[in-house]
Formats: sequence, C-alpha cells, structure tokens
Amino acid sequence: MNQTTSAQVDAAHTLHRLHNFCAGPASLPTEVLQKAQAEMLDWQGKGVSIMEMSHRSGDYIKVAEAAEQSLRRLMNIPDNYKVLFLQGGATLQFSAIPLNLLSDGDKPGNADYLTTGAWSGKAIKEAKRYAELGLGEINEVASSKDSNFATVPDRSDWQLTEGAQYFHYCANETIHGVQIFETPEVEAPIIADMSSCILSEPIDVSKFGMIYAGAQKNIGPAGLVIVIIRDDLIGKASAWCPALLDYASQADKDSMLNTPATYSWYLAGLVFEWLEAQGGLEAIAKINRQKAQLLYKTIDDSRFYHNPVEPKYRSIMNVPFTLKDSSLDAKFLAEAEQAGLLNLKGHRDVGGMRASIYNAVSLESVQALCDFMVAFANKHA
Amino acid sequence: MNQTTSAQVDAAHTLHRLHNFCAGPASLPTEVLQKAQAEMLDWQGKGVSIMEMSHRSGDYIKVAEAAEQSLRRLMNIPDNYKVLFLQGGATLQFSAIPLNLLSDGDKPGNADYLTTGAWSGKAIKEAKRYAELGLGEINEVASSKDSNFATVPDRSDWQLTEGAQYFHYCANETIHGVQIFETPEVEAPIIADMSSCILSEPIDVSKFGMIYAGAQKNIGPAGLVIVIIRDDLIGKASAWCPALLDYASQADKDSMLNTPATYSWYLAGLVFEWLEAQGGLEAIAKINRQKAQLLYKTIDDSRFYHNPVEPKYRSIMNVPFTLKDSSLDAKFLAEAEQAGLLNLKGHRDVGGMRASIYNAVSLESVQALCDFMVAFANKHA
Repeated sequence: MNQTTSAQVDAAHTLHRLHNFCAGPASLPTEVLQKAQAEMLDWQGKGVSIMEMSHRSGDYIKVAEAAEQSLRRLMNIPDNYKVLFLQGGATLQFSAIPLNLLSDGDKPGNADYLTTGAWSGKAIKEAKRYAELGLGEINEVASSKDSNFATVPDRSDWQLTEGAQYFHYCANETIHGVQIFETPEVEAPIIADMSSCILSEPIDVSKFGMIYAGAQKNIGPAGLVIVIIRDDLIGKASAWCPALLDYASQADKDSMLNTPATYSWYLAGLVFEWLEAQGGLEAIAKINRQKAQLLYKTIDDSRFYHNPVEPKYRSIMNVPFTLKDSSLDAKFLAEAEQAGLLNLKGHRDVGGMRASIYNAVSLESVQALCDFMVAFANKHA
Repeated sequence: MNQTTSAQVDAAHTLHRLHNFCAGPASLPTEVLQKAQAEMLDWQGKGVSIMEMSHRSGDYIKVAEAAEQSLRRLMNIPDNYKVLFLQGGATLQFSAIPLNLLSDGDKPGNADYLTTGAWSGKAIKEAKRYAELGLGEINEVASSKDSNFATVPDRSDWQLTEGAQYFHYCANETIHGVQIFETPEVEAPIIADMSSCILSEPIDVSKFGMIYAGAQKNIGPAGLVIVIIRDDLIGKASAWCPALLDYASQADKDSMLNTPATYSWYLAGLVFEWLEAQGGLEAIAKINRQKAQLLYKTIDDSRFYHNPVEPKYRSIMNVPFTLKDSSLDAKFLAEAEQAGLLNLKGHRDVGGMRASIYNAVSLESVQALCDFMVAFANKHA
C-alpha cells in the first residue's frame, strides 16, 4: 500500500503564510500546522491518520492524556480540578452552566452575572431562561452597557447575592476588546469565560470554581471547548441537563461519554506542546504585552485611530479601533489585505476595525500592522 | 513570509497506509486526506489555513455551502428539508430529539421508539428521561433484546402509538451489526439514526421526518453531526432545550448560531466531493454490497467464524464475528495487525471481532482481510 504522494511533493516548495488577525477561528502556530500536516496520513508510522483512530485505542488515549497533562503544566492546574475536552463551544456552556450549577439537583439556587460586553450578555440571557423555568434566580450584579462596554463596572457598585451558587463573568470580551485582568473578589465560586484570553498569561486557577474556553482562539480549531472545573462543583446537575452536558458524567468518563472531537483534541495538544516550547505562559505573556503595547501606542499616538476602551481594561488579545473618517474603512481593509494583513474588519456589532493578536500572532505581524497603520494615516491625515 | 517547509519535504517519500477496519472514528479516503494535507497551511493560496478562517468570511461560507450542496446532490435531499452541520455527535441528538420534538412547545406528546441494539437503546433511555420530566410519553414499540439483538422485531409485532409525534429507530446498529434496509412503514414522522450507514447506499429522504448521523464513520472526523430535517418539524422545541440545540435557531442561522466545527465541515465537504467523483451513492453501494458479500461469505463458508445476525438484517457496514475458539482471539488480532489489518477487535459489549467496512474501506482491503481469515482458519481448524 505504498504510493508516492504527489500532493505532498507539489506542496513542498515554499510556504505562503500571511498575517492573520482573525478573531476566531484564529491563527494557529505555523509549526503546529506543519507537524499536523506531516503526520496527517500516517500518524507516527501507524499507517492511519490520528483522525481515523478509535478514541478508545491505546495510541489515541496517550495523545489525549498528554494534551491534558501539558495543559495542566502550562496553567498549573491543581489536582482537585477536572479538565474536560467537550463540544459545542462556549455557547453550549452558556446552557450547561445553569443546567449543572444553578440549582443543586432539584433545589433552586441563585447565581450572579457581571455584564461587560456581548459574550457575557449572551451568557446571562441563556441563564435567565433556565431561571424562569424554575432552576432559580439570576442576578445581574452590574452592567457596563451604558458606557457601550468601554469599561468595567466599579467593584464597589456590584450588587452581589449572598449565598449565590456561582459568580459568572467573561474575562475577555472578544467583540468589545475589554479584559478583566484581576480575578474578581467575590465569595461565590467564580466561573470565567476565558475563550479569548486563556493561555495568554499565567493565572491562578485555584481562585476559580470553573474556567471554560472555546478552542478557536488560543487552543486549536473550532468545535472543542475546554472546561476546567473544581471537583466540589461537579454532580449537582438538574435532571433537565442533557446527558452529554452533565459535568459529572463527562468527568467520570474522561470526556469520552461519546466520541469526542478527536482531531481537535490532538491539535490542541500540539498547540500546548508548542506553548511549552516557547517557554510557557510567562514567556508568551511577555510577548503578548509587547504586541498589545505596540498596537495601542500606534493607535494612541495617532490622531487618526481611536480605541474607546478605558486603558486599564484594554484587552491584550482583541484590539478594536476606528478610523477618524469611517468612509476610509473599505480602503483601509483593501490596502491592508494587499499588504498581507488579513481579517481586520471589526465585528458587525461594533464596526470599524479589530486586530486579534492571539498567541500565534507574532510580534513581527503586529509590527507589520503598525507600520501599515502609520503609513496609511500619514497618507490620509 | 515564505520559508521552505522541511516537514513537507521529509513527508514526501512514500505513503504508508494500512487496512483500517475501525468502527469510528473510521478510515477516510486517502485522496481526501491528501487534499487536506496539501492545503493545510495555505488554503487555495489565501495565506492561511481553512481552520484559521472566520466562519463568517466569504471564503469559508462558500466552502460550507458547497459541502451542503454536494450532500444534497448525493442524497437527493428535497428542498423542504434543512441540512444542519452541528456538534456533539449523535449522542447529543438523543437529547435534542425529545427536547425539540416530543412536546409541541409546552404541550406534552407521545413518541415511538424501536430498540434493535445498543444505540437505539441509548436513544430511548435519554428520551424516557425527558418524558418523565413532563415532555410526554415514550413508548418502546418493540425490542429485539431477547435475541441478543441478532434480528429486528417483526413489523406485525410493533405496538405503535396513534398520533405519535415521531417514530425513532437506528438504521444501522454499529455494535451489533444489524441494519434495517427498508424504511419502516409507520404513520408518524420517521426519525432515523444513520450514523454508521449514511451515504452507504441511496435512500429516499422524502420518507423521513429527520435523519441524523455522527460524522466519524462515512462523513468525516468526529465532532460533527449532520441533521437533515423536514421543515414542518422545526419550531416546536421545549423551552428547556438549550439554545444551541434548537433546530429552529440553527436552521435560521444556517448552522452558525455560534462558531461551528469549521474544519470538520470542510473535511466533510471533501468527502462528499470524493463520493461524487466515485459516481455517487449508486456506485458506492455496489462496491459496499460486494465488500459485505465477500466478507459474510468468508464467514459462512468457514466452520471457524460465526456471525449471529439474521441474514436479511446483516449490516453492510459493520460485520461482527466470533472465532470458534475464543482463546485464539488475541492471536488473531496480533497476526492481523502484523498483516496490516488494523482495529478488528469487537466492541467490549459483544466481544469477538468486528470489521467496519465503511465507504473509505476498499474492496482490496476487504479482500486482504478475507484472505487472512481463510489462512488463519486453515492454520487453526
């Protein structure tokens, strides 16, 4: 069954990779894609692709476990936390969270939600639906909607519920570019949506009850969501929770209650391995800070670009900005694309531009963007 | 940003692909993996991987739509059916089906389930859970459990419910190797789990209310599930249905209520394209029949191998068989692996062996398996 592979030979000339500022599915490290490419048809000499292997095979389980262990090292995840590799993205977690944690079984409970942008807004909307069906009560502790989500409500203004089952917030709002760097000080177990900031810098996992993150920004391809959950929060699901969304069942089966997204899990493992090779989260955080500082400085130093977010909450992963003259937007995007700077169009809810500068976006790429921005501004000022 | 890609150059020698009889995640066409491999880092000269593209970009939407259109051509799907590309596998559909279709909104309903093996057994179990919570009543019309799932209950013995919201069955039981080739004649809308037989032969979609299938057998990588649903069945979901599992919301957003499993969707499109190039379902069904006949004949002609399923219900995709002397099982598996015949171990619930001979498993592979089986039997008879 050996044949020459002309497709591979043809592909083996030069590599054409442009600067990709997509908000998600987002840029992945070139080295990761190269490794996946090299072993796509024949994983480690086994004669099959990793995506053609049973999730219950010894080889695959080693891959799955290695990915988890690598993530545990990177994030220094304590032993009393389970790491789950699930499906459905963060959005399915918006439902899974109240279904698992709002009530304690049949006993209704309370939960607090902080609203700081589009994603935390979606999370509370879904939780409120389940509260109204009888799972308990959802309280919005505060919202920055009045500021158009350009800031985070002052901690002193939060109306917290005593004895809440959990406190939910979004650590980084991908659309509005608002990041909460300090873990909130609240008594209830903290649940954080870290879809667009996980692995961007070290955090203290032990401060959280649960962290979840869709993979398609800093972890891997879309279709995978990672849930890191403290043991004592597992096992309280409402009877209404679909079997597959029950954290207890999934934890019990090491995320293999049914066939997981095996190829995405494998790719996530390659990304984790790559991150460890970069020096881990301390090292990547240093580069991420450099990238963000460079880009915000370019924006602030100009009279041409504008970012509306209060400086201390400016995201180091997603940088929305507008042009002084929005009639130049199309021209900006077209010329950027010609310069190899892709996917800079802002989210339709916000308009303008957005540069997502996740782990896999290099300092060189951000420098190229800044150079282009300065030149464009000079031409049109 | 051009660099030479040594990983590709190294990979470009010969291709090592063995015979893969895995039940799922299963063998994919080599040509599909080669195409995916060739364009993994740079999709059609765009300078990014398809898995690094926004699902809302023009390029990606074309890929997604082309996949759907190809599937519509292959299966001749009528215009009054929606095709959804979702996450969570068939197992999440076991929950989504009663949540969407058992009640009509808040009004409880009835549904009929036929049990013919492990998978239809799991489906009814989850539906019963929701019935007990108030969504209605679930009726098992018949079960072949007493035969150890070696047959299908006679149609004349089915206890159907008048006015049922739907009738559910599993068209091919992957573990027990039982396939129902004729679409059941019942009055209620038919919902079929076709995870392990979709695209294996032509079917008349118009006879069904809904067809669903996890991708990891005949469609693509794990982490994608396809739902083909008639328009009039959409829009009845219970309020308890998670937003992401509501067929109406997903149909309304073309399966992009949140970020779908974009890479899996793309790979599914490549598989559909490959199937069309093979001549479509008529052509592949002819080969599938040949493969199955060859393997069952090898089993039946021997006094060494045994398949327990009543001949007219024998699956053309999953062929479980036992050895006369089960103490030879380990030897059989080890020697098979040495001969490049992989993943023949039976499911833990059934024991013995299982050869899954999906579309991507060639006649040549099945011939190699049969040759090995004959030689092994001769040696140990």
